[in-house]
Formats: sequence, structure tokens, C-alpha cells
Amino acid sequence: MKIASQLDPVRNEVIRGMLPELDIEFVEIPRGAPVTFDPTIEVFFAWPFRKAGQPDAPVPPGWPFGLKWVQLVSAGLDPYPDWLFEGPRVSNAAGTLAVPIAEFCLALILAAAKRLPETWIESPEGWRLRKLAAVENATLGILGFGAIGENLAKRALALGMKVHAARRSDAPLIPGVARAGGIESLMEISDHLVLAAPATSRTRCLVNDKVLARAKPGLHLINVARGALVDNEALIRALDAGRLSLASLDVADPEPLPAGHPFYTHPRIRLSPHTSPMSDDADVRVARLFADNLRRYLAGRELINAVAGRE
Amino acid sequence: MKIASQLDPVRNEVIRGMLPELDIEFVEIPRGAPVTFDPTIEVFFAWPFRKAGQPDAPVPPGWPFGLKWVQLVSAGLDPYPDWLFEGPRVSNAAGTLAVPIAEFCLALILAAAKRLPETWIESPEGWRLRKLAAVENATLGILGFGAIGENLAKRALALGMKVHAARRSDAPLIPGVARAGGIESLMEISDHLVLAAPATSRTRCLVNDKVLARAKPGLHLINVARGALVDNEALIRALDAGRLSLASLDVADPEPLPAGHPFYTHPRIRLSPHTSPMSDDADVRVARLFADNLRRYLAGRELINAVAGRE
Repeated sequence: MKIASQLDPVRNEVIRGMLPELDIEFVEIPRGAPVTFDPTIEVFFAWPFRKAGQPDAPVPPGWPFGLKWVQLVSAGLDPYPDWLFEGPRVSNAAGTLAVPIAEFCLALILAAAKRLPETWIESPEGWRLRKLAAVENATLGILGFGAIGENLAKRALALGMKVHAARRSDAPLIPGVARAGGIESLMEISDHLVLAAPATSRTRCLVNDKVLARAKPGLHLINVARGALVDNEALIRALDAGRLSLASLDVADPEPLPAGHPFYTHPRIRLSPHTSPMSDDADVRVARLFADNLRRYLAGRELINAVAGRE
Repeated sequence: MKIASQLDPVRNEVIRGMLPELDIEFVEIPRGAPVTFDPTIEVFFAWPFRKAGQPDAPVPPGWPFGLKWVQLVSAGLDPYPDWLFEGPRVSNAAGTLAVPIAEFCLALILAAAKRLPETWIESPEGWRLRKLAAVENATLGILGFGAIGENLAKRALALGMKVHAARRSDAPLIPGVARAGGIESLMEISDHLVLAAPATSRTRCLVNDKVLARAKPGLHLINVARGALVDNEALIRALDAGRLSLASLDVADPEPLPAGHPFYTHPRIRLSPHTSPMSDDADVRVARLFADNLRRYLAGRELINAVAGRE
């Protein structure tokens, strides 16, 4: 069978290796919004069409061609145009990247508590004890309780952290995690606060002056969700006022931030380039999901992570 | 009652606050090997007498005066002279510092895997994806399975690491931890290898050329035990040969390392000044142990962490 793919050839090969029973031919589609498809192709593995904040590409004439299923390589739905979700079934990659992102959050929490890299010294003058913070008994707040929030919460509980989470739905949390009312109550109680909620009209600039004014003194804000959740100027005001001790941002709005943006050089901001999902086994994690879903598709079964379209 | 103490006054006060039923007078003893004691004093809270590698102070005339119990502020017994253990009962502080040290090890592991601080960028030129390593499914080796090893193992298992440990005794490990034969087998299988065994004649220069030659390529060595466990020159040879990717050293031999020592500037060494036990609640952790033990002492019960002397 032919599959249209915007993945790297190595990922395509990993998927093929997981499905020895199938005779797959990958048809490479250039990245960016695609313009046309061979009408015999039913399945499309899609890479994000555009950066956040860029305008949607127009719907290509002939869409959806013969496509019946689009599998997205990302968890976020925002780097795709609305028209993508108005034709074939669509499934996303939620969950495959959750473990690396949760690990990245823990790395940021521990680096802040143990004062890395300042703790590493380069001369005898640095040889003096430093006041480091304990993580055990510290309070972790999590906004959003999808796969990232849940994976992070499990790990933080094992470290003896007190974990509070807020989620939009009434769906249950996990044992040991306390339910918080929302971002404001998380701000008030958290030593480390992780944003792991999707970018929607409801979450846009959720972390603004009013919310930041509620922060527990010394709070460490971590954003691994989307830059749009944070009011950039309000964040800088809160850091400059000494209300927050640190902001670790793996995402920004826009991405990349333009040269000269204050996030690059602010002494209380640690900025990484949306790299938290990366891991040496990420290709395998995504390939496993795609292979599972392809078997389900061919068997006429329900897809994992279906986000649009009728079964 | 009078208690001789080499602790900071703040720690003495915390202990006093935990024992409101007792009328305690702390007699401050200068740090370093003490020379004399009021003969009415039975209890001595002791700070390390000397740095590792320095010679023992001679036994003071009159030792042990009226002392019946010495409580050490450290877990390690090496910074005290032999004669200290040949008089009154002695108990150490094993365990009180184990959680902060285990957390520090995790911080070092995650910083290596997630390439902190290199992942933090300061200009748009840095905005590109980096290959970060997963911690889940990586292999952690632990040499020594006292309180540090056990606290680290529990946390690493919750992160999905494969944990192997070697301990001298036949005492059991914990569920989920595989028993390794010794340092050489740990070298062969570990992505991250933590030294958490005491400094003894048996462990001196345990990590030498022969052992390092067995390392899994790219191994990350972490030493939170004692510098004496590692042959410094052999470690540099292994790093320069590219066999190890990184050594994170919180201890060294001697401490502090002299100016110009290559550990300060080696690109694959991260050196911290024996700061892993520090935490904002360390004073409380130690004070709680001392207060518990003082109640036990006065009640004639068995001491926690007794390491010498008859009950």
C-alpha cells in the first residue's frame, strides 16, 4: 500500500520494520502545507504545516483527494489549518512525547532546586557550601492533566513532592494528586508550576498580571505547553519584581523569538528551543504509535488518539 | 542537662525546640579535634574533626572525660580519629542526608540526559532541535546500597530506569533492583553509574584504569561518596579517551582540590564542592535525628545509627 509521508526517511523505515506483514511504499510529501496527493493514497503521515502564529495555508483544490486518515506527528493541533480536520479522520501523537517532556520538566525542577549550573565550580574559590533546596515535600502544581501532566505527576509523587493539578474536565486525576480549582489556586501554593495545557482561546494569556500577582513568593514557572498561554510582558514584570524566582520556558510566542527579545537574556529566564519532546528513542515511540494505528485502520478498528472525523 | 556541641547555634536551637521537656544548656566546643571537656558532660554533638587525608589529631589527655555518647553530624566516619570510637558510644547521621543526596544524583542524571545547561539558548541562532536522551529505560548502576543508594533506586525506578546495584553485604536490595556482582559489572551495563559506598581500604582507588576499561561507551560517572574511591589520573585518561562521556563529581581527594587541578577545568568534568547533602531542610532533618536519639539515650534505649561502643 502507498502511504503519503512528511516524516524523515528514517522514521518511515522504522515504521516499515514494525509492520513486516505489510508491503508499504512511502510517497514523500514535501514539508509545509501539501498541495496535491496521488488519488489512490488513503493514509497521510503529517508533519506540522506551519509555525505557531503564521497564517493558515488555503485549502488545496481537490482536498481531501482520496485521503481517509491523517496521522499527525505532533500532539498539538495548532500547527495545522482548520480544513485539515474537516475531511478525513485525523489522529494525533498525544502521549508518545509525554514521557520525554515529563522528564524534561523534572530536569528543570531539579536544576532549579540544586542550583545547576551555578553549583559547578571552576576554582578553589568556589569551594564553599551552597544552600540547595529539597524537592521532597516541595509543592508541584500542574495545569492540564493530559499525558504529560499524568506522567509528570507519577514521577513527582515518587520524589515525595506534594502534587496539585487543575484540569478543565471532571475526569479523575490519579491517586495522590490533589485537585486544584484553576491557575490562580495553583499559583498560590506551588513552588514549581508546570503549564501542560493545550493552546486554546480559553488558555490564551492565561498567565497574566492578575494571575501572577497571586504567585507564592519564589515560585518557579515552567512552560512546556505553548507560548501563547503566557503574557510575555506580564511575566517579565513578575520576574523583575522578584515575585517569581525563575521561569523555565521551552516554548515561546512566537517561535523562534526574534533577535533581541528579552527572554534570551533575562537573568531569571531559562529558554530552550521547544526541545523538551526530543529523546534518543522518540522516533521509536512515534513509529510504534503509527504502526499500531495503521493496523487498526486496516482492520477497521477505532484509532488511538482520534481527534476528528467519523470512524 | 549540659550538652557539648560543635554545631552552629541555629542547629542547637532547633534541637532544643524539639525537646521542650528538657532543660538543655549547650556548651559550645570549637570545631576541629577538641582538647578538653567539662567532666560533668555526658553527650557531645560532633562536627567532622578534619578534612579527608589530613593526619589524625593525637588523643587528648583525659579522653573520654565524662562523655558517654558522641553523636556525629555526618554519615561518613572517616573525618574522625580512631580514638573517638574507642571510648563512649558513637552514633552517626546516616540517612538524614540521604534524600538530598539522592535528589542531587537525579539532578545530575537529568542534567546530563537533557543537556543542561547547553540546551538553554541566548539568541535565535540557538533555535534548533537537540538530540536529548531519554531517562526511561536507561540503566542506572549504584555502588553501595545504604540509605543513599536505596533512596536513589526508588526514585530511579519511578522514572522507568533499569536499576542495578552492588553491595558488599548479602543484605537484600529492594524489589525492582537487580543485584550486580561488583564495580566491573556495573561499569559494563550502566549509562549512569553512581558511587555511594563508604571510603575504606577496600574501596580506595576502586575506580582505576582496569575498571574504567570496562565502561559501557558513553558512561556518565557520578561520585557522591568520597574522592578516595576514584583514581584521579585514571579518570582523566578515560575521559580523554572518550570512553566516558562525563564525570559529575561532588567529592574529590583532597578537598578542596588545589588551584590548577585539572578537575576544575576538564570539559567533561562537572565538579561541585561536596554540596549534595545540602538542603533547605537539612538542619531540621539532622536535628530530628539528634532529638530522637537524645530521648533514646535518656531512656536507656538503643540509639539510631549506633556505630561504636556498647549499649
